[in-house]
Amino acid sequence: MNVAIIGASGYTGLELIKILINHPKFDITYIANSSGEETLEELHPCLKDVLNVKVQKADAKEISKVADLAFLALPHKTSMAFAKELLELGVKVVDLSADYRLELETYEKHYCPHEDKEHINEAVYGLPEYYKKELKEAKLVANPGCYPTASLLALLPFVDFIEEKTPIFIDAKSGVSGAGKKLSETSHFVHLNENIHAYNPFKHRHMPEIQEKVKLVKSKEFQINFVPHLLPITRGMLVSVYATLKDEIDVEKILEESYKNSKFVRIRKTPVDIKSTAGTNFCDIFVARNGKALFVNSSIDNLLRGASSQAVVNANLMCGFEEDEGIPKIAYVP
Amino acid sequence: MNVAIIGASGYTGLELIKILINHPKFDITYIANSSGEETLEELHPCLKDVLNVKVQKADAKEISKVADLAFLALPHKTSMAFAKELLELGVKVVDLSADYRLELETYEKHYCPHEDKEHINEAVYGLPEYYKKELKEAKLVANPGCYPTASLLALLPFVDFIEEKTPIFIDAKSGVSGAGKKLSETSHFVHLNENIHAYNPFKHRHMPEIQEKVKLVKSKEFQINFVPHLLPITRGMLVSVYATLKDEIDVEKILEESYKNSKFVRIRKTPVDIKSTAGTNFCDIFVARNGKALFVNSSIDNLLRGASSQAVVNANLMCGFEEDEGIPKIAYVP
Amino acid sequence: MNVAIIGASGYTGLELIKILINHPKFDITYIANSSGEETLEELHPCLKDVLNVKVQKADAKEISKVADLAFLALPHKTSMAFAKELLELGVKVVDLSADYRLELETYEKHYCPHEDKEHINEAVYGLPEYYKKELKEAKLVANPGCYPTASLLALLPFVDFIEEKTPIFIDAKSGVSGAGKKLSETSHFVHLNENIHAYNPFKHRHMPEIQEKVKLVKSKEFQINFVPHLLPITRGMLVSVYATLKDEIDVEKILEESYKNSKFVRIRKTPVDIKSTAGTNFCDIFVARNGKALFVNSSIDNLLRGASSQAVVNANLMCGFEEDEGIPKIAYVP
Amino acid sequence: MNVAIIGASGYTGLELIKILINHPKFDITYIANSSGEETLEELHPCLKDVLNVKVQKADAKEISKVADLAFLALPHKTSMAFAKELLELGVKVVDLSADYRLELETYEKHYCPHEDKEHINEAVYGLPEYYKKELKEAKLVANPGCYPTASLLALLPFVDFIEEKTPIFIDAKSGVSGAGKKLSETSHFVHLNENIHAYNPFKHRHMPEIQEKVKLVKSKEFQINFVPHLLPITRGMLVSVYATLKDEIDVEKILEESYKNSKFVRIRKTPVDIKSTAGTNFCDIFVARNGKALFVNSSIDNLLRGASSQAVVNANLMCGFEEDEGIPKIAYVP
Repeated sequence: MNVAIIGASGYTGLELIKILINHPKFDITYIANSSGEETLEELHPCLKDVLNVKVQKADAKEISKVADLAFLALPHKTSMAFAKELLELGVKVVDLSADYRLELETYEKHYCPHEDKEHINEAVYGLPEYYKKELKEAKLVANPGCYPTASLLALLPFVDFIEEKTPIFIDAKSGVSGAGKKLSETSHFVHLNENIHAYNPFKHRHMPEIQEKVKLVKSKEFQINFVPHLLPITRGMLVSVYATLKDEIDVEKILEESYKNSKFVRIRKTPVDIKSTAGTNFCDIFVARNGKALFVNSSIDNLLRGASSQAVVNANLMCGFEEDEGIPKIAYVP
Repeated sequence: MNVAIIGASGYTGLELIKILINHPKFDITYIANSSGEETLEELHPCLKDVLNVKVQKADAKEISKVADLAFLALPHKTSMAFAKELLELGVKVVDLSADYRLELETYEKHYCPHEDKEHINEAVYGLPEYYKKELKEAKLVANPGCYPTASLLALLPFVDFIEEKTPIFIDAKSGVSGAGKKLSETSHFVHLNENIHAYNPFKHRHMPEIQEKVKLVKSKEFQINFVPHLLPITRGMLVSVYATLKDEIDVEKILEESYKNSKFVRIRKTPVDIKSTAGTNFCDIFVARNGKALFVNSSIDNLLRGASSQAVVNANLMCGFEEDEGIPKIAYVP
Repeated sequence: MNVAIIGASGYTGLELIKILINHPKFDITYIANSSGEETLEELHPCLKDVLNVKVQKADAKEISKVADLAFLALPHKTSMAFAKELLELGVKVVDLSADYRLELETYEKHYCPHEDKEHINEAVYGLPEYYKKELKEAKLVANPGCYPTASLLALLPFVDFIEEKTPIFIDAKSGVSGAGKKLSETSHFVHLNENIHAYNPFKHRHMPEIQEKVKLVKSKEFQINFVPHLLPITRGMLVSVYATLKDEIDVEKILEESYKNSKFVRIRKTPVDIKSTAGTNFCDIFVARNGKALFVNSSIDNLLRGASSQAVVNANLMCGFEEDEGIPKIAYVP
Repeated sequence: MNVAIIGASGYTGLELIKILINHPKFDITYIANSSGEETLEELHPCLKDVLNVKVQKADAKEISKVADLAFLALPHKTSMAFAKELLELGVKVVDLSADYRLELETYEKHYCPHEDKEHINEAVYGLPEYYKKELKEAKLVANPGCYPTASLLALLPFVDFIEEKTPIFIDAKSGVSGAGKKLSETSHFVHLNENIHAYNPFKHRHMPEIQEKVKLVKSKEFQINFVPHLLPITRGMLVSVYATLKDEIDVEKILEESYKNSKFVRIRKTPVDIKSTAGTNFCDIFVARNGKALFVNSSIDNLLRGASSQAVVNANLMCGFEEDEGIPKIAYVP
């Protein structure tokens, strides 16, 4: 099946290319970025002698002629305008931006006015463990944010057992690649090296995404209190969920049961680390309890399970392929 | 005033030496380690042309002849045997180990049988913001653990306002130097680089230290749930306290009030980072609230405020000097 | 074709497993380490849900029943004893240790007495760009050291043009994984983080390996002066060769010509970096000239091109497969 | 003595402030940057509760009223315009830019037309080990570049013994702070982390500075071939000089003799590392020889010995103080 990658300059665009080059079912027939003036090798010198094609300036009509599905690795707002056009031309879309992740009202409150109200309601949230059936029928998939992916996979199994009206705290730590390629004080080497700090505590836009999905999946409303941190590492994400349980239950058993059929969630007997998942689509989860105090601890690769490899899993499902077809499972370790 | 440093080989011993070399009131007259076979320059090549003396094999009687106060940077258990001897010889002691930090029962539950029951009750807990008066009279000071220092300074101002019976969560992150100089898989470069992971969640021995001190200082009992992490950096510590408030109070004001007279606590308007305190005795604190959900965020240098510089502050107080005499205030930044 | 991996506990053993899991022509039928008591998942938690088999205690006879070729990722000296046995049982061997890399006299001078004089002379040096023909006929391949791989690929094209009797300097920098998994002061995180230093200048055992191969391949004798450094990164290697040319020649052209048919050497127009090759079998090379002063600059992944992926390239050649069959080409970047 | 710091926003400005706060002889009476709109605490949050003064917009006349000496931590070209004005007003100047480091012709070839031809010839090159006498009389000191400082201190003792007409190679590695605070692709965390690469090989502007000073100090002309690298660390610099000796001389003895009276050069018996000098004004040097091949290896803190602390040493000399008055000698280690 022929696919297009729109937004090839950034980190998630590059990761999409790296996965799809070796994918047994998808062929990349179109690659685009905003300028359309460089070759792939100029954009990503690591691809020299691996894949070198002209990178186009994205054109929906051209895409519809050569691809059945498009991955959009574009900024918020840019993405919805483009997705709309592609969907109308009959091209399936996996959108890696935030544009279709939220309900209209939530989106407009936290981002901007929405420009594709026609499709926002039919978008499926691309968290395969909880939306597999819908994904198999989907024409438009909203790929989850990196923090929501790791947070929801850790939290959802326990939602029914958490004391209502108590706050849930999520302390999340991400590698710098999550902040993208653009230059900023925060991503200056000297600023972050030998350092770590929280940013936007209780105010990050992934907080309403987590809160809304908990409500949609579990029909329960909780106050999610989300505090993200930037780590002095390139890739990887560690999430710690802290909550108060109603009873002193067997948390290991609940976790095992929840994911016994999942190919990409691994239950760990010791606290998870970033290295075991970096380079893969796995989400590793560990759980511990102290009386009624709950600690759920998950690890993902922010650029893969938090973006590009999860996007390809979603594309696999949309196209009727096996979920794990061509998906990276081997960590970069050591 | 003449001082001795016992335990010169490790990181905290080195930091003590570095501070005391330039201290205007203390003179180092005795330096010891367990072998007594090397020079200081052999132990710490960075001290070449700065200070080079023979490092002794520690002998309490000899120390009592040349020093009025001794800093013990020794392992647990070794420390109490030695402190006992020194105290009996009339030498004041600042003990950097855990041996005198806890009440007898708590200590024996989490460490080992105590061998100096004579002095354990007269030891003063060396957190100057809360024990200044007692420190001025003390002959034996138990220097707090690094995690308890950062956790208590963040938590104590809010204890009276936290909903009783709700768990308090502390997510703490430390640089690797906190694990000491000895070789272990955990401190292997390849293991920790580009990585981060929790260890001993809900089981670290600093958890009862925090819990006990909250009770002693504030006469309130809380379930403290402590989860430490190892960071891929050399020094520094970041602590996040998550708790549920009784009411939607003005947390910034409470924090400001609590430390308005403190020379070594700085209140920050944005989340704290590790770099601003690394190299100093400062504890930086930031606070935020989301409804009744509380986030208190503190940063210290684990080897200085979490060990050696706090020990010298305590010695200053014990000897009637100004609290900040000779104490490092200038961060290594950038 | 069935293959065995002997020495599965270390970094190079793990990398062999990671490559061979997805190799289209080789099947792993036997994995061993020295204890034979763990599962693969216990040795390498990152392999959970990827590959989990019992790791055997190595037994040559058993191997000969289930495998046609064995990769030996063993320490020097251990390796030759084992290789000898396997070769006598008709199993092809790719040896990743130093045991068969050197001529007998050179080996015994720099390592220890040799225990397999029968086979040392028939071993082929596994640098495919210079020994391809011999590798296709080989039963025993000595996989080159990491430093010699990067140094020789940079240096050999220019040997004929370098002023005789002038010293050649090689300033090499390696990630810490090159020092292996065993604990040592040098690999302690605190020692190496924010640091870099040379070690064994002019005395490293890879120096005679480079010198001998220059002589064997080019029939020229030079004084190679080799200074390795340890970098505060996990994997990757950068080598800088400095030499004096006889004439002011077109060095770019010579380099291009030398590797125009090579699938795994990429000529770069700007100084090479480590990230573009980490995760791959590529060697990237850049060259510059200032009058008669020559600078050749190469980059490899020390665990892959410097060990495991080069071993699989050699196995491909020994078995009549395409050189690049199943060999990693996609860098971990970013 | 009253001093001014002009250019307080950057890394070297901050380091100047940090040194001068505690200097026993100098008082900071004026701090300026280009905007003059922030407080010191806003520019450098680490200085909260340490020093907080209004940062001025630099004005030469105002400075001449309150300071006897000014440190200029300004960009090239900006610096000479300002220095000129100050010198005419009778203020002594230590200039940290390149503007007065070179002879006129060399400067204009590698930088830009010079705007202060009046003073360029009277500037003294601020490398105290080789210009101490002149520095004591100087009104204008050109503080050396970081690479030239480490390179010249390593190279100069051996210049008389190096084979003429053979190229000298300098392989230098610097922490990222050397590239300054401004945002660039090169200083993006993701670009440099787990990476290292050369830049401007044979073309860096510190190459003519080294070459010219060798000629001036030793009256010998050599072809210096300089290759700088960027390291994934914040501060520190390691320099390796490779050259061909005329004879197999006792290099350790030559080195010891050269610096036996120097307070800030330490001779090491093993290869130098970055950590032992980071935080200090020391230059550590190690030397090794292999036949006639010479390896001289030096380490400095690029922001201190390579800039700010060397500037204060120069100011000490200019003002008749002890060379090491108030100069940092205690490394940040570990």
